[in-house]
Amino acid sequence: MSETLFRGVIFGVERFDAELPDGRKVKREVVRHPGAAVVLPVLPDGRLLLVRVLREIFGRYLIEAPAGKLEEGEDPKEAALRELEEETGYYAHSIEKLLEFYATPGFCDERMHVYLATELEEREQNLDDTEYVDPFPVTLDQALSLIREGEIEDGKTIAAVLYYAANSARAASPVPEE
Amino acid sequence: MSETLFRGVIFGVERFDAELPDGRKVKREVVRHPGAAVVLPVLPDGRLLLVRVLREIFGRYLIEAPAGKLEEGEDPKEAALRELEEETGYYAHSIEKLLEFYATPGFCDERMHVYLATELEEREQNLDDTEYVDPFPVTLDQALSLIREGEIEDGKTIAAVLYYAANSARAASPVPEE
Repeated sequence: MSETLFRGVIFGVERFDAELPDGRKVKREVVRHPGAAVVLPVLPDGRLLLVRVLREIFGRYLIEAPAGKLEEGEDPKEAALRELEEETGYYAHSIEKLLEFYATPGFCDERMHVYLATELEEREQNLDDTEYVDPFPVTLDQALSLIREGEIEDGKTIAAVLYYAANSARAASPVPEE
Repeated sequence: MSETLFRGVIFGVERFDAELPDGRKVKREVVRHPGAAVVLPVLPDGRLLLVRVLREIFGRYLIEAPAGKLEEGEDPKEAALRELEEETGYYAHSIEKLLEFYATPGFCDERMHVYLATELEEREQNLDDTEYVDPFPVTLDQALSLIREGEIEDGKTIAAVLYYAANSARAASPVPEE
């Protein structure tokens, strides 16, 4: 059983009954979120197309991968393509799943679906009129430095860049011939 | 100006007034969270001491790094040591900052402070009586496989393990002598 405590624009809050392994019943509060699509776009020159996004909560811009919440019933891959085009103006002819994870599973059900987008074609940026998003292309080495220096402060972007780096290193190591 | 919409056990919800770069005023909703300490503990044999944590939201256990929210006024490093000992029974004689990031900065101010814990000494696990946490030690290679296979589904743990892997790879590559 669950009870809605708050219903907002992006998220809601519910209180629900959970049963512990020993049979006790407890009440838990949870932030309900529809989930998010996250895109790591790779430009033809190999740079990652990150963005600077105004985050009103912090009163400043953060460096992030393009991302946005899923619309109701929306396939995460479609959402990734949509958010990429809205935020950067690029359409991706190739898109593949990198990772899926919960952003902060102790109190929130938001699941993040992370895609790698390649074969980019420039179209037109199409932001909501209260969104402030600027392109911020960086090489992979620059992105890794920005993580080490604490300049990239967004968990999903850190996870996506590090995962991509780990796998492109692997891809770059030729398989020894038998 | 901000207005409290909900005040819960772990988090609260506020609505606040933000000013956009063009001067317009907008209302935004935010989940307020005190922040979290996250620990990547390395056992003497080199394995990472992850944990399996019951997450009632999902009705199952997730594989995570030991973590917990900051108490009021608590230093994140102290919180990391405290959570490590409570959840695993280990005290760390050496602890160093790896990373800091926001879990999901679009709507939540939770900042995660990630530490690497080494020189572990076994003491006593000390869980709250509604917490279910089991030790889950893995090698770094196993942890990386679990990430690739989607078995580690927690963003902070993915970021921490990949960051550690990237830096231990670097540390393991000897600097060429001049």
